[in-house]
Amino acid sequence: MAGTRTPIITLLTDYGTRDHFVASMKAVILSIASNVQIVDLTHEVPPHDILEAGFMLRSCYSYFPTRTIHVVVVDPTVGSERKPIIVATDNYYFIAPDNGVLSLVYDVEPVSTVVEIAAEHLRMPEVSNTFHGRDIFAPAAAWIARGTDILNFGNPVEEYTKLTLPKARVVGDALIKGSVIHVDRFGNLITNISRDDYNAAREKVPGNAFKVMIAKQEIVGLKEYYSQVPKGELLALFGSTNLLEISQNQGSAARTLGAARGAEAGVLLK
Amino acid sequence: MAGTRTPIITLLTDYGTRDHFVASMKAVILSIASNVQIVDLTHEVPPHDILEAGFMLRSCYSYFPTRTIHVVVVDPTVGSERKPIIVATDNYYFIAPDNGVLSLVYDVEPVSTVVEIAAEHLRMPEVSNTFHGRDIFAPAAAWIARGTDILNFGNPVEEYTKLTLPKARVVGDALIKGSVIHVDRFGNLITNISRDDYNAAREKVPGNAFKVMIAKQEIVGLKEYYSQVPKGELLALFGSTNLLEISQNQGSAARTLGAARGAEAGVLLK
Amino acid sequence: MAGTRTPIITLLTDYGTRDHFVASMKAVILSIASNVQIVDLTHEVPPHDILEAGFMLRSCYSYFPTRTIHVVVVDPTVGSERKPIIVATDNYYFIAPDNGVLSLVYDVEPVSTVVEIAAEHLRMPEVSNTFHGRDIFAPAAAWIARGTDILNFGNPVEEYTKLTLPKARVVGDALIKGSVIHVDRFGNLITNISRDDYNAAREKVPGNAFKVMIAKQEIVGLKEYYSQVPKGELLALFGSTNLLEISQNQGSAARTLGAARGAEAGVLLK
Repeated sequence: MAGTRTPIITLLTDYGTRDHFVASMKAVILSIASNVQIVDLTHEVPPHDILEAGFMLRSCYSYFPTRTIHVVVVDPTVGSERKPIIVATDNYYFIAPDNGVLSLVYDVEPVSTVVEIAAEHLRMPEVSNTFHGRDIFAPAAAWIARGTDILNFGNPVEEYTKLTLPKARVVGDALIKGSVIHVDRFGNLITNISRDDYNAAREKVPGNAFKVMIAKQEIVGLKEYYSQVPKGELLALFGSTNLLEISQNQGSAARTLGAARGAEAGVLLK
Repeated sequence: MAGTRTPIITLLTDYGTRDHFVASMKAVILSIASNVQIVDLTHEVPPHDILEAGFMLRSCYSYFPTRTIHVVVVDPTVGSERKPIIVATDNYYFIAPDNGVLSLVYDVEPVSTVVEIAAEHLRMPEVSNTFHGRDIFAPAAAWIARGTDILNFGNPVEEYTKLTLPKARVVGDALIKGSVIHVDRFGNLITNISRDDYNAAREKVPGNAFKVMIAKQEIVGLKEYYSQVPKGELLALFGSTNLLEISQNQGSAARTLGAARGAEAGVLLK
Repeated sequence: MAGTRTPIITLLTDYGTRDHFVASMKAVILSIASNVQIVDLTHEVPPHDILEAGFMLRSCYSYFPTRTIHVVVVDPTVGSERKPIIVATDNYYFIAPDNGVLSLVYDVEPVSTVVEIAAEHLRMPEVSNTFHGRDIFAPAAAWIARGTDILNFGNPVEEYTKLTLPKARVVGDALIKGSVIHVDRFGNLITNISRDDYNAAREKVPGNAFKVMIAKQEIVGLKEYYSQVPKGELLALFGSTNLLEISQNQGSAARTLGAARGAEAGVLLK
């Protein structure tokens, strides 16, 4: 159609960038749909780490234009009976193995349709049992980009995998308990304590006392940006995805605190 | 021409992604041919590792649309007398230094023409002796994308470098001997024993006995996908490029076995 | 406009590629300007390393087509009072925090206009204090790509940050003293001694004696390409950005010499 925007396909995998895997996916996509814009979300998810992939996806998928096709391939049970699926929401398509990697999206994005990718004519002619990224997921994305209705891929799926993820909770009257769910490149410790969690708890505890307890250390006060404290000092703020983040100005909080994903974090509001 | 597909240029180098090298190549390409799609194959080939580059190329080049222009720059003798060449086959263009990096392609892709890149007006005005990726190979790719006939680049080359690569061989009546030629991001050990090698040997040895010997361990049975064995267990299968692969379900076979590229692998068929 | 070339936006950050940061910037750009070509310059600048980012930019920006929009986000004081700016030169746009990261560009590219990015309608509706890459710099690049006049972004800035960078200097009559300003992926040591520095000094010292002193070693002679010396041997040459480079044929000069950025290097011309 004249005036139609170039379709966008994003790729999020644990394939790394040293191998040919990502290029193979792009090759297949471009062979089917020559007029697409492919964006790498990241390929450095630790091997088989479904939770990390889910967190990466949730952190940025909604900034893409509507109708973007998000392909997520972190797929430890590739070739087994786990289903490849397409999830359509009001705004996006998500293509992934049905292993829970989309759980964080289900939390926030109303799902309209889920179908299994079964139609053989919409796959590669030969499907390897170890590389569905190339042989099933990439072709599916390309065919959707070309306008194929998702109902052509296979039957609707009523039951799909949703993982229960650790959530922050309020303990007693003024303590929010959560944990670190991601460590970013700078060594910032991103927790599952959201600004909403905080606002809800705050309503019951007037004042602005704020103390984070993590890795046997205490960090007092809620800051807004990193350089608000002297270089090398630890701080706490709500970061760019509205989650509580423990940081060090121009340093690595993870290294300084010896903390990693899974570390417990508490916020005391009085 | 109206309706012509956007030309695709792939880049495969040992330049890494921390430096400006890859961006410089893209800058030059886009300055000459604004309407191209550039795909990174990988830039993390270990420095000067011609065999690894060749293996990466072979693993995925054929999935790209026909007429794709594949640029391979792993070039330890850049600036010396080794020739920069363009190889045209029925389906693709390959642009590389003539140092054997295309050897695996010559094995499987019938070559129609090879020319030396010599024409000065199809290079950068100033050619550095240490960065032909930017000054010779990138411009050549861009000019081909714009439709320049490869015979304009220089004289046909009759003799070009072809490396002899280690091949699997049958020893006695039921043993296939090969070696590890690549370790992927997941720690899978990819060997040079192909499914064809196996099928040919199998014809003479009825039954389905299958035992892999590698790094003083034995792995019994041929599997089809990783999670067919319990988590942490070793297995053998023919992977997505039809080569025998030693893997560990959700683990690194390379680490567990202490094996690296060059490790010997044998398959006993009875 | 019919016939207009697709605008190019380059991205240079210290965000790494394991996180969603770069993808978030691309998402925002594509939401505002669907018809752009985005090129990653590099994202592996060491965290907060303004000098390294500046060097990467200078090494390749001028190879891009004119009117390319270069976005540089190495921004240790994000969220503080440091200004986000747009720098227009005769040939390019540069978008960055005003922290000196563009200093090397100011040295060589005549600046026509500098404006502060202040207009709220040209930012994301909500601006995080920790991720101006997504919320301020990416939208600015996209709006410029769409043709927005930079005077619409905010007031012209007369004073902007220019760092004083270490320069090579001539000591006595025949010694050029400089230092290593970058170590590339191959372990080549790139110094701040330029070919122009050398030519100027040479004019006063006839002959072609040339001896580099670095890390207590001496390297005699000026070479033109790496494989001009036997494998494993050290050499000196003017590299692809016309800076003196200490290298090892098919090896890492940095590792062999134990030298890093900041190491002193001298060239004796007699």
